[in-house]
Amino acid sequence: MLDDLTDAERKALAQCRHAILGVDRPLRLDCGADLGPYRVAYQTYGMLNDAKSNAVLVCHPLTCDQFVADRHPVTGKEGWWESLIGPGKILDPERYFIICINVLGHCMGTTGPQAREPSTGQPWNLRFPVVTIGDMVRAQAALLDHLGIPDLFCVIGGSMGGMQVLEWAASYPKRVFSAVPIACAAHHSAQNIAFHEVGRQAIMADPDWRGGRYLLDGTNPRRGLAVARMGAHITYLSDAALHRKFGRKYQDRATPTFSFDADFQVESYLRHQGSSFVERFDANSYLYLTRAMDYFDLAADCGGVLANAFKDTPTRFCVISFTSDWLFPTPDSRATVHALNAGGARVSFAEIVTDKGHDAFLLDEPELFAIVRGFLDGAGKARGLNAAQPREAR
Amino acid sequence: MLDDLTDAERKALAQCRHAILGVDRPLRLDCGADLGPYRVAYQTYGMLNDAKSNAVLVCHPLTCDQFVADRHPVTGKEGWWESLIGPGKILDPERYFIICINVLGHCMGTTGPQAREPSTGQPWNLRFPVVTIGDMVRAQAALLDHLGIPDLFCVIGGSMGGMQVLEWAASYPKRVFSAVPIACAAHHSAQNIAFHEVGRQAIMADPDWRGGRYLLDGTNPRRGLAVARMGAHITYLSDAALHRKFGRKYQDRATPTFSFDADFQVESYLRHQGSSFVERFDANSYLYLTRAMDYFDLAADCGGVLANAFKDTPTRFCVISFTSDWLFPTPDSRATVHALNAGGARVSFAEIVTDKGHDAFLLDEPELFAIVRGFLDGAGKARGLNAAQPREAR
Repeated sequence: MLDDLTDAERKALAQCRHAILGVDRPLRLDCGADLGPYRVAYQTYGMLNDAKSNAVLVCHPLTCDQFVADRHPVTGKEGWWESLIGPGKILDPERYFIICINVLGHCMGTTGPQAREPSTGQPWNLRFPVVTIGDMVRAQAALLDHLGIPDLFCVIGGSMGGMQVLEWAASYPKRVFSAVPIACAAHHSAQNIAFHEVGRQAIMADPDWRGGRYLLDGTNPRRGLAVARMGAHITYLSDAALHRKFGRKYQDRATPTFSFDADFQVESYLRHQGSSFVERFDANSYLYLTRAMDYFDLAADCGGVLANAFKDTPTRFCVISFTSDWLFPTPDSRATVHALNAGGARVSFAEIVTDKGHDAFLLDEPELFAIVRGFLDGAGKARGLNAAQPREAR
Repeated sequence: MLDDLTDAERKALAQCRHAILGVDRPLRLDCGADLGPYRVAYQTYGMLNDAKSNAVLVCHPLTCDQFVADRHPVTGKEGWWESLIGPGKILDPERYFIICINVLGHCMGTTGPQAREPSTGQPWNLRFPVVTIGDMVRAQAALLDHLGIPDLFCVIGGSMGGMQVLEWAASYPKRVFSAVPIACAAHHSAQNIAFHEVGRQAIMADPDWRGGRYLLDGTNPRRGLAVARMGAHITYLSDAALHRKFGRKYQDRATPTFSFDADFQVESYLRHQGSSFVERFDANSYLYLTRAMDYFDLAADCGGVLANAFKDTPTRFCVISFTSDWLFPTPDSRATVHALNAGGARVSFAEIVTDKGHDAFLLDEPELFAIVRGFLDGAGKARGLNAAQPREAR
């Protein structure tokens, strides 16, 4: 099963841990298929304490991965949430056992469409079953079982990561002491599905996609994936942020070229976003992960009433949104908060004023840090974590 | 010059009027090139009165054309603004001489990249000079000269049409008695440039685009153009309208297929938007028109001060925006209004409350109709139009 990895997977697995799961009992997916064996790649920081009470699960968004707080093996860039995680930071490995799991369907070591189908030895490609946010979370829970981690002090994540946080709290309320869903929603909106569909169509329109069989044919739908990424990237930023960063400024020139070159800085920036993305991401994975987000609808799984997903939940919640996030606008988070209130949950809610758009959760946003720190301090006291020391410190 | 038309052009020109301009004196374009001879296709409704005081120029948006109030020769659909224009309607051909001109660079009969370059006899393709909103308006003014129409009672249009309205008022203040720019801005924003760039990249990524030479090669970048259209179409609608129209409803099924089919109605709708668009639109034209909008920046042409574009203008303005239009949000229109005020213009401004998004100007929006009717009645009185009868009525 570890044979025939892509270059990116090989590099990723060399720098993180992994487990082969589902050997004896396959994972039953929402689509009805059974998946197993499957590989789960993950990264950890810090040590689990004796009480096993200090585990924090960080759920990554669509285009990030398990390298949340160390240098990325493919891009060489620093971890995507080093602002939050690291020595002396809010999620300090000295205090917490932090784990970040590459989601099912992704392309950084966890089984996805590029993996080999056990029965044929060929890449799954589009025969890989369509996975859901629920499937991702069940695979994560299976890994925690495998690692002997009974429950989590906190599950935290933004965007698709936030969807996983909500799914965790709904599916495993007793395993989640506290939850921080950021910049997300309990279901994907029509507009968000629409943007995803455009990205998928861009990939599928690329002849190098070859009906999803590009790995077999030795091609790569780079142009289609780049277009998909460019379009999606606009939705991660706010109009105001694009205006502030780029406005109508020209790139390396004082006057327009009257051509289709990247005259404007914003064009040049987007093209770079597209071309760099294809170096680290798999096109079929992009299809699968966007599809998982589209299908996400917690209320639909609970008779249409979102509050039912959180009825009598023991979990403490801190829901966070950003004023300029138009992909997951504040009303989405407020709907989650109302459902949590109706379900009798302990919940705090913060809407952070920023012009940085959806991606604010990945950026230097002091108010976000302050709120998460305050919430975790409170939850830590309730959990008795402040007294506990990580194992390695003793 | 009328040889070798595309099918769409042939059908269009069979049902509208056209003129060959720039034979003696070519059109000097903003890029510095001279264009001539060139063809301008246009449609008219009603008759010019003896005083030549009742001409109304309707400026069409990017993906519409001169068939504003009669059945489209290619799609067979009714005119795109029949809600506003027609017997008994706000722009009544019994009262006004209405003219709508296919813009330079378009593909419905007016010269664009698909036309023959006089010096080579081959399609211009990407050798066609990049045109601007200013160039479009100068070509329109040249046609009015050709037709002997000294000035316009009103210039009206939305989106790219609204940009032309502003350009008309700035470039030919004495020829514009009244102006109604709807759902537009005096410059294209970074976010709007970004969305256009994604669409262009989608077209250029299609191997059938052939570096723009697809007409010579007998191919057609249909897939790329469809993706571009799908992405753009999302920006024409509001999140709320998409939610109201489609929500998360499935298309012809009760449960998800767990596949990449168009499970959701919004996906099916977008795919239809894409595939129908390519039947009536030329990919290179799409590149040129989006580029023209990107380059639009009235203030930049006036020393960076938008008010200078309208200094001491005699034109009466009615600026209209829609609350849910996030492509050209109300602050864009308000900036235009402030500049008009600073320039000493007579201006009224209406922000219409609607959840229909940018495309509200094309839809059944009673408040829009009421405002335009009221403004035109007032302007008509000032112009002495109420007394005047169209020529044919006498």
